[in-house]
Amino acid sequence: MRLRKIKGAREALEENKYYFISHPEENKGKWSEVFKNNNPIHLEVGCGKGNFIIGMAKAFPEINFVAIEKFESVLIRALEKIENEEIPNLKIMNGDALTLCDIFEAGEVFNIYLNFSDPWPKSRHAKRRLTYKTFLDIYRNILNDDGAIMQKTDNKSLFEFSIESFSEDNWVLSNISVDLHSEDVFNIMTEYEVKKSKLGPIYRLEARKRR
Amino acid sequence: MRLRKIKGAREALEENKYYFISHPEENKGKWSEVFKNNNPIHLEVGCGKGNFIIGMAKAFPEINFVAIEKFESVLIRALEKIENEEIPNLKIMNGDALTLCDIFEAGEVFNIYLNFSDPWPKSRHAKRRLTYKTFLDIYRNILNDDGAIMQKTDNKSLFEFSIESFSEDNWVLSNISVDLHSEDVFNIMTEYEVKKSKLGPIYRLEARKRR
Repeated sequence: MRLRKIKGAREALEENKYYFISHPEENKGKWSEVFKNNNPIHLEVGCGKGNFIIGMAKAFPEINFVAIEKFESVLIRALEKIENEEIPNLKIMNGDALTLCDIFEAGEVFNIYLNFSDPWPKSRHAKRRLTYKTFLDIYRNILNDDGAIMQKTDNKSLFEFSIESFSEDNWVLSNISVDLHSEDVFNIMTEYEVKKSKLGPIYRLEARKRR
Repeated sequence: MRLRKIKGAREALEENKYYFISHPEENKGKWSEVFKNNNPIHLEVGCGKGNFIIGMAKAFPEINFVAIEKFESVLIRALEKIENEEIPNLKIMNGDALTLCDIFEAGEVFNIYLNFSDPWPKSRHAKRRLTYKTFLDIYRNILNDDGAIMQKTDNKSLFEFSIESFSEDNWVLSNISVDLHSEDVFNIMTEYEVKKSKLGPIYRLEARKRR
């Protein structure tokens, strides 16, 4: 879908000082100061309207959650959902995944979530997929050596591409599922996942650095 | 299914000198002499009733195909199909995949096919799955460095297990498909595949040694 530019979205984001981080690069290597504790940091890349990260932050108060989303007009929807709540272990920022090395120190992130990322189906757009090698190199840098990348998608081709891309780039794959909703596992869903899981399988993988 | 012991199956196999190799370990390092050419050798582990390997041998006369099957009573069905034909690039043998290093010299096999192997669903039987580490070590030994293992299955759990097992064991995965029959690719089917593909997706992967 093409996103409608919402007038004043940036201004609305900037107003929400409790959740919204305007200049995340100022926190590089100092995220524990932002959260005022040393709990592990989990990052969602492309949080959309925020259902997943908000659900996770409420379910796991001893983990600090940071979400990055490229589109202000979507991010504002996430903030609207929680503007009357105080979730101290959740921060949200606007920006591109390509800048993550400016925002986090090497090893500063424990887990990374990629949920229903844009599949960019055309081959000439492969480089834009969030599991293209360029991105994997960025994740490898900011990810803790014991951490993992957790991906969910309903897109067959993105799932197949991601397995091949992680494998080629020497990550160890685990917790593969070709039908996540057939399994009895804890799973906080995105808005999109609720809709799509009625139409076909949801795929899941985890990837870790090889030791 | 539990296989009925067919009386005289061994004797019937032994009678077919054209296709059946009684003492395959005698050919170790000398398979090119068996086929009287230096064409690459492709091996199917667990050929069942042989549809796949017979179809492949006819489709690719410049590749030498060898099939191994544990159960004599099934293997005899494969031989019955071709007893009135002469397919010079096909040999069939009876035995256990655990003995493959006694049958092939290191690097002697170019491709290995695993088609619809027994999924051994119980955890305590995991070691019997043909993609358990024990078997991967054997394949790594007999497989040419440029070769690949090609697996097809309709079993979700075996597919997930296999991706994890190959990945853990440092193989590079490629040509992943979570719905092979939705793709427009050349695909010779096993008897089982014809039936199962009407009921759900067929999964496919390729695994190569990391360079």
